[in-house]
Amino acid sequence: MTTASALLPATASHPPQEPALLSQYRHVRAATEMLVADLSDADATVQSMDDASPAKWHLAHTSWFFEEFVLGARVPDYEPVDPQYRYLFNSYYEAVGARHPRPRRGLLTRPSLDEILAYREAIDESMFSLLMTAQTDDEAALITLGLHHEQQHQELLLTDILHLFAQNPLRPAYAPELVVPVVADPRPAPEWIRFAGDIVSVGHGGDGFAFDCEGPRHQVLLRPYALCSHPVSNRQWFEFIEDGGYQTAGLWLSDGWRWVCDNQIEAPLYWEARDGTWWQMSLRGMHPVDPDSPVTHVSFFEADAFARWAERRLPTEAEWEHAARNLPATGNFIEGRSLRPLPDRQNTSGVLRQMFGDVWEWTASAFLPYPGFRPSTGAVGEYNGKFMSSQMVLRGGSCVTPESHIRATYRNFFYPQQRWQFTGLRLADDV
Amino acid sequence: MTTASALLPATASHPPQEPALLSQYRHVRAATEMLVADLSDADATVQSMDDASPAKWHLAHTSWFFEEFVLGARVPDYEPVDPQYRYLFNSYYEAVGARHPRPRRGLLTRPSLDEILAYREAIDESMFSLLMTAQTDDEAALITLGLHHEQQHQELLLTDILHLFAQNPLRPAYAPELVVPVVADPRPAPEWIRFAGDIVSVGHGGDGFAFDCEGPRHQVLLRPYALCSHPVSNRQWFEFIEDGGYQTAGLWLSDGWRWVCDNQIEAPLYWEARDGTWWQMSLRGMHPVDPDSPVTHVSFFEADAFARWAERRLPTEAEWEHAARNLPATGNFIEGRSLRPLPDRQNTSGVLRQMFGDVWEWTASAFLPYPGFRPSTGAVGEYNGKFMSSQMVLRGGSCVTPESHIRATYRNFFYPQQRWQFTGLRLADDV
Amino acid sequence: MTTASALLPATASHPPQEPALLSQYRHVRAATEMLVADLSDADATVQSMDDASPAKWHLAHTSWFFEEFVLGARVPDYEPVDPQYRYLFNSYYEAVGARHPRPRRGLLTRPSLDEILAYREAIDESMFSLLMTAQTDDEAALITLGLHHEQQHQELLLTDILHLFAQNPLRPAYAPELVVPVVADPRPAPEWIRFAGDIVSVGHGGDGFAFDCEGPRHQVLLRPYALCSHPVSNRQWFEFIEDGGYQTAGLWLSDGWRWVCDNQIEAPLYWEARDGTWWQMSLRGMHPVDPDSPVTHVSFFEADAFARWAERRLPTEAEWEHAARNLPATGNFIEGRSLRPLPDRQNTSGVLRQMFGDVWEWTASAFLPYPGFRPSTGAVGEYNGKFMSSQMVLRGGSCVTPESHIRATYRNFFYPQQRWQFTGLRLADDV
Amino acid sequence: MTTASALLPATASHPPQEPALLSQYRHVRAATEMLVADLSDADATVQSMDDASPAKWHLAHTSWFFEEFVLGARVPDYEPVDPQYRYLFNSYYEAVGARHPRPRRGLLTRPSLDEILAYREAIDESMFSLLMTAQTDDEAALITLGLHHEQQHQELLLTDILHLFAQNPLRPAYAPELVVPVVADPRPAPEWIRFAGDIVSVGHGGDGFAFDCEGPRHQVLLRPYALCSHPVSNRQWFEFIEDGGYQTAGLWLSDGWRWVCDNQIEAPLYWEARDGTWWQMSLRGMHPVDPDSPVTHVSFFEADAFARWAERRLPTEAEWEHAARNLPATGNFIEGRSLRPLPDRQNTSGVLRQMFGDVWEWTASAFLPYPGFRPSTGAVGEYNGKFMSSQMVLRGGSCVTPESHIRATYRNFFYPQQRWQFTGLRLADDV
Repeated sequence: MTTASALLPATASHPPQEPALLSQYRHVRAATEMLVADLSDADATVQSMDDASPAKWHLAHTSWFFEEFVLGARVPDYEPVDPQYRYLFNSYYEAVGARHPRPRRGLLTRPSLDEILAYREAIDESMFSLLMTAQTDDEAALITLGLHHEQQHQELLLTDILHLFAQNPLRPAYAPELVVPVVADPRPAPEWIRFAGDIVSVGHGGDGFAFDCEGPRHQVLLRPYALCSHPVSNRQWFEFIEDGGYQTAGLWLSDGWRWVCDNQIEAPLYWEARDGTWWQMSLRGMHPVDPDSPVTHVSFFEADAFARWAERRLPTEAEWEHAARNLPATGNFIEGRSLRPLPDRQNTSGVLRQMFGDVWEWTASAFLPYPGFRPSTGAVGEYNGKFMSSQMVLRGGSCVTPESHIRATYRNFFYPQQRWQFTGLRLADDV
Repeated sequence: MTTASALLPATASHPPQEPALLSQYRHVRAATEMLVADLSDADATVQSMDDASPAKWHLAHTSWFFEEFVLGARVPDYEPVDPQYRYLFNSYYEAVGARHPRPRRGLLTRPSLDEILAYREAIDESMFSLLMTAQTDDEAALITLGLHHEQQHQELLLTDILHLFAQNPLRPAYAPELVVPVVADPRPAPEWIRFAGDIVSVGHGGDGFAFDCEGPRHQVLLRPYALCSHPVSNRQWFEFIEDGGYQTAGLWLSDGWRWVCDNQIEAPLYWEARDGTWWQMSLRGMHPVDPDSPVTHVSFFEADAFARWAERRLPTEAEWEHAARNLPATGNFIEGRSLRPLPDRQNTSGVLRQMFGDVWEWTASAFLPYPGFRPSTGAVGEYNGKFMSSQMVLRGGSCVTPESHIRATYRNFFYPQQRWQFTGLRLADDV
Repeated sequence: MTTASALLPATASHPPQEPALLSQYRHVRAATEMLVADLSDADATVQSMDDASPAKWHLAHTSWFFEEFVLGARVPDYEPVDPQYRYLFNSYYEAVGARHPRPRRGLLTRPSLDEILAYREAIDESMFSLLMTAQTDDEAALITLGLHHEQQHQELLLTDILHLFAQNPLRPAYAPELVVPVVADPRPAPEWIRFAGDIVSVGHGGDGFAFDCEGPRHQVLLRPYALCSHPVSNRQWFEFIEDGGYQTAGLWLSDGWRWVCDNQIEAPLYWEARDGTWWQMSLRGMHPVDPDSPVTHVSFFEADAFARWAERRLPTEAEWEHAARNLPATGNFIEGRSLRPLPDRQNTSGVLRQMFGDVWEWTASAFLPYPGFRPSTGAVGEYNGKFMSSQMVLRGGSCVTPESHIRATYRNFFYPQQRWQFTGLRLADDV
Repeated sequence: MTTASALLPATASHPPQEPALLSQYRHVRAATEMLVADLSDADATVQSMDDASPAKWHLAHTSWFFEEFVLGARVPDYEPVDPQYRYLFNSYYEAVGARHPRPRRGLLTRPSLDEILAYREAIDESMFSLLMTAQTDDEAALITLGLHHEQQHQELLLTDILHLFAQNPLRPAYAPELVVPVVADPRPAPEWIRFAGDIVSVGHGGDGFAFDCEGPRHQVLLRPYALCSHPVSNRQWFEFIEDGGYQTAGLWLSDGWRWVCDNQIEAPLYWEARDGTWWQMSLRGMHPVDPDSPVTHVSFFEADAFARWAERRLPTEAEWEHAARNLPATGNFIEGRSLRPLPDRQNTSGVLRQMFGDVWEWTASAFLPYPGFRPSTGAVGEYNGKFMSSQMVLRGGSCVTPESHIRATYRNFFYPQQRWQFTGLRLADDV
């Protein structure tokens, strides 16, 4: 069950003759709109930092993607809903032309949230018509890409709203009942799961959707290694802080130490010390940090320093993927505003757990092309390849990643200082 | 008739026994709210630059002023509407305590516009009760100060909304029918009005409200001088541009030339060249620049360079005030969303015209204390005196200044590079 | 006796027939070179901040002035010493053309100090020839301007070297024996000298050299006022610090308070707290702050805050000039590397003292044109007028100002936050 | 023959009994000093950007390394030459303590170049004594590290001087006769050298010195690949420019395109267009760009964009090392101020050429730890490992790298936008 499907009424029974891609389209689009159901026009408009975008912009840009790459390219004599939107809602596609500068997205009080929702409706109508007809494989692939693109923005929308609300001294809650990532049962205690050295295959190579950067599937040589069964918890992070982790230069990469000093970093993002207790801003508002949750909102620099402090290391992305390949993607996925309960998954011994659906796990690997990588052709080729410098790979998927968007080959990437996503870590070690 | 009164239904007849100060209070507060009648929650929330504030913030801060300085100080056991507002809506009063940083005012998507309007209503109720009782002179003076403070923010609210809307590529109109500043009848042509040298008195000294910085009334020695009957028009500014004014270093102050070069200044703020014609963003949206309007949205640096180009100079504030002292304050004042027509005032020869209610006129005077100046005591003493460095005085009042807020002794002040206010100039000369 | 003359051997007897202007030229030029006698090539090359210039640059630029405005303009077929110097050593004269950017002056390790001294010698030879012939009044005025220009740079050279040496953790001394400003005899105690209100004339109007901005001479209306007999001392500044002056927002102008907070200002520039004692970096290296010296290296913001703390005010420049007009210019002027002792001047009661030759005194006046001011024509017209925004006037002259450069009408000016000059203050009050 | 040995007179015959490490020490130290023989005190003092250091600082810091890590740690009761130097000349060793901030290194006009040379002499005397005695293996390893450290700074000293001189409008030459990198014989034309896929060993594992980051030696799986026999030449770069390479967004990484736009990059660093010809600033001053030299002073962003334009790619560091492993290190190494001629090496077909001693070659690999990497213990452990984020690996060695400092396993690293080193590229391709 995907996040998207979970967001629709259980009774929504589409006619059996509806094409599968149209059903997927409906589900993903509806899921996006449910995320903004409780946001005001103002909430959906403001941009809290250059890295974040307004919710309204996410709503519009994901529709622009279908208008620009599908409708405009495939529908004869297609008339754009509003010609100015082409400029306003392009994100970074140089091939498409000039665009509204990213740091100025939050200045667009018009069009309003209602107008953007009407824009979405207009795009949906055209897409519904298109999707009732037969698609070429290329068309179907492009539309599927658009849906995965929209799922990425569902996650960004939530992390951006959290960042915005965290800037407000009132610390408003996005969804007071939503506890993410889940508080895990601390039993059994973490253990080390060993993997033999081998030549293994990694990367996407089979059926199903994947982004271009996930392939080609290729062989890598792994040495014997071990992964910790659990992601690092807040309880472990308390120890790191108490042991002076943020004050010990020797634990940090050089760039990381400068980042710590320049920004006076003393804890994960959204943590605040109040009367000797750590509190945390999250989608449910302010609450004490739960020791049994995986730590999140830490940068690569912090993850790397923690691993050094623990006398371990971060896994490479190949190690992570090899370990995850045979695991079911069983996270506590967000479903609209509540969590799908998974009471049984946590308490088994000898397995890796919380690999999917809790926190994105920083790896020791830079985001670089796989051997033989070729970007997609056309403007959508700007999707991943052009970001292959200075960023680090994260694996797994977080508590705000749509379930159907998660897979073992997925390569997420961020700059080493970024931490407004739900980013955590899992320790690895040589054997 | 004030702007504020104009904004109320003509039929609003308050009981004859209502205290005068209460009537004023009602009028000013209602006028503020009319200004936001057509703004969305998002329009009222976003901050387009550090110098500007969100409309919602203006609405709240002007209420905070009454809550902090009047209700909190004068009403026994006063319970604040929301204790957090004290922090959120303090502008710059160090004596009041910590405050939300100015450049982050636009991140407050909560409280919403509706909640702020409810806050205003709650303050108004308490103020109405207070105002039905007798006031000491001090109390009355403080409330009157609060009303003038609110009128200042009425003007800022409009200039800040204009700035916000000008950042939007859609160039939305605030009020499509509103033509400000008015297009003046170009006849008769400008002429020079002469004034003899003398020892004259300037500054506020008599009855009626004035800000502390307008006094003490004192004597200054004026040499013979002349003022131009008209403010500088857009038509004259076209000539300045065509003559290479923005490319001629010798016309500019050193700081001004750096400002021109660093910011690639080529025209007044909000002007755009389109196919060889100058267009302008204003409260009514985009339109061609009208040659017969006074130029506005120019910085002191531009005003000073223009005067040098014209081989004249800017007047000192004493010269301006001496000339204006005996003039009636007869501008085309904005009244809600329309202008009070003044068909007769423009076409008389031998008089100074458009001294009030068109554009703030930059003077050659720095904003410094008058001899014997003492700031008010208490927190409200931070009102004007602490800004007495590096700013220049402007006189007159603009097309978005409330009429009752205008007087000959008024000292407005801005930094020499600022120009998002309705700022223009009038030439002076030695005789 | 001028500084310049003091720097020459007493036995230097020029032939009686040598023109007076040539003698002055010799003296001023030689004085400049004595200032760099102990500097290394590296000392003379590095630029410690954008506001400061390398000593080598001062040496070259003052020569460039004569080459550009005198030799190049007046000598037929003049061949420049090095055509590239025209670009390298122009300071800010837009009319002269492009120039090496100010913040990059310190990157010029070539030409070397020796080459620059040779450049000076070449200019001097040409100037000597020119000065042996008769001058028109205009030529003589221009050369005189060049000499005063060079004297300004003598002072800047010393303040810039002090700034450079203060950045060096070794805190090297420029001249270990030089005690400036002098430690004054604290007796008799400060007293208030009163002046009646009147219409008085200020500004340069008679014979002798003055910069264009010192005129025209004009009348101003003064109210009765008083000046303190002494400049503010370090002892008084200790009290200001101990009383929390730097932590009390209410004492500061708004821009000043931001400057204090942003830069964590806690004391005058070059002061350092060591084991509970204030030490100071000066031209003689590090030493304890002397309580009886006038405070120096304070910004306008600090001077203004101090005056408010003392419940007094700064004088206007007209008040200062009126008081100083009849005083002899009797400072402890620097003479090369030693001070001319003035043992008698300090201990008289009922007089203003240390008006000249100790510290530049911040006034309450912005640097603006006097009524009827017209800049000089040509490139030298860029000398003063174009700096008339956002700066404050200082009066008097400091311990590193050449004596012949000091006069009662002199208007020095700096931005309110600048304090690497020898800047102090004297209190004034209303009567 | 090393650079260092080349710098010494051929007749320098050390006594046969002199320990080998002492001979090496003498050679390396003397080589450093020869590099500054023609620099003035000012040349050796100024810092032209934060990334660069003054020559004087390089001279002192390399001595500080021996004083801090060898003499201070190993010589009983060692008295430092000057206790303040410990603070002044620490580069980035957090474990050693506070240090003079990097961007302020250029403000130290004192100690002078002569004093720094005297400091070197004092260190040398102590080191000579120490080196005449027997060393433990650890001591010998540490001293050897210090010599390789000094050789790194020899290269940096030259690239930093070039950067400094390039900022000077006079464009002074460091060594007018020095042509580096060499102009290569363009015949035979470039060809592709193929390598089979295999599991190969890379990294340092045997005898001889290597930095910690060069190991552990480990296996990697290579797919078949090809390398171009030549590095990319200036002639090829002309084509890239003429084909609009710097204006074509699609060729660039996203971070690279922003770098191009923000900095208006149009050519390699130090190139200037003059009348339609490309000129270049180099150690010999300004000269036309030679088409047959390898392109240098390009960033990783430029190298990567060029490869994309050429429809090839950059090699990984493992590919590069595997190909280079069996090649002799036969570059045209700089020897003091002249080149060792290698007339025969260039014109053979079917070989890789110019792998060492021309330009550092950007690879497609991020600078990350090898499997099993452990930094050295103690302060010298800060040498390489802490820089393992956001930098890219370069291989080979440049025309200003000392010959004995070059080896096939060497991993140089810089940020993707840096290009003041002698950085170029060689194309690779899949087979």
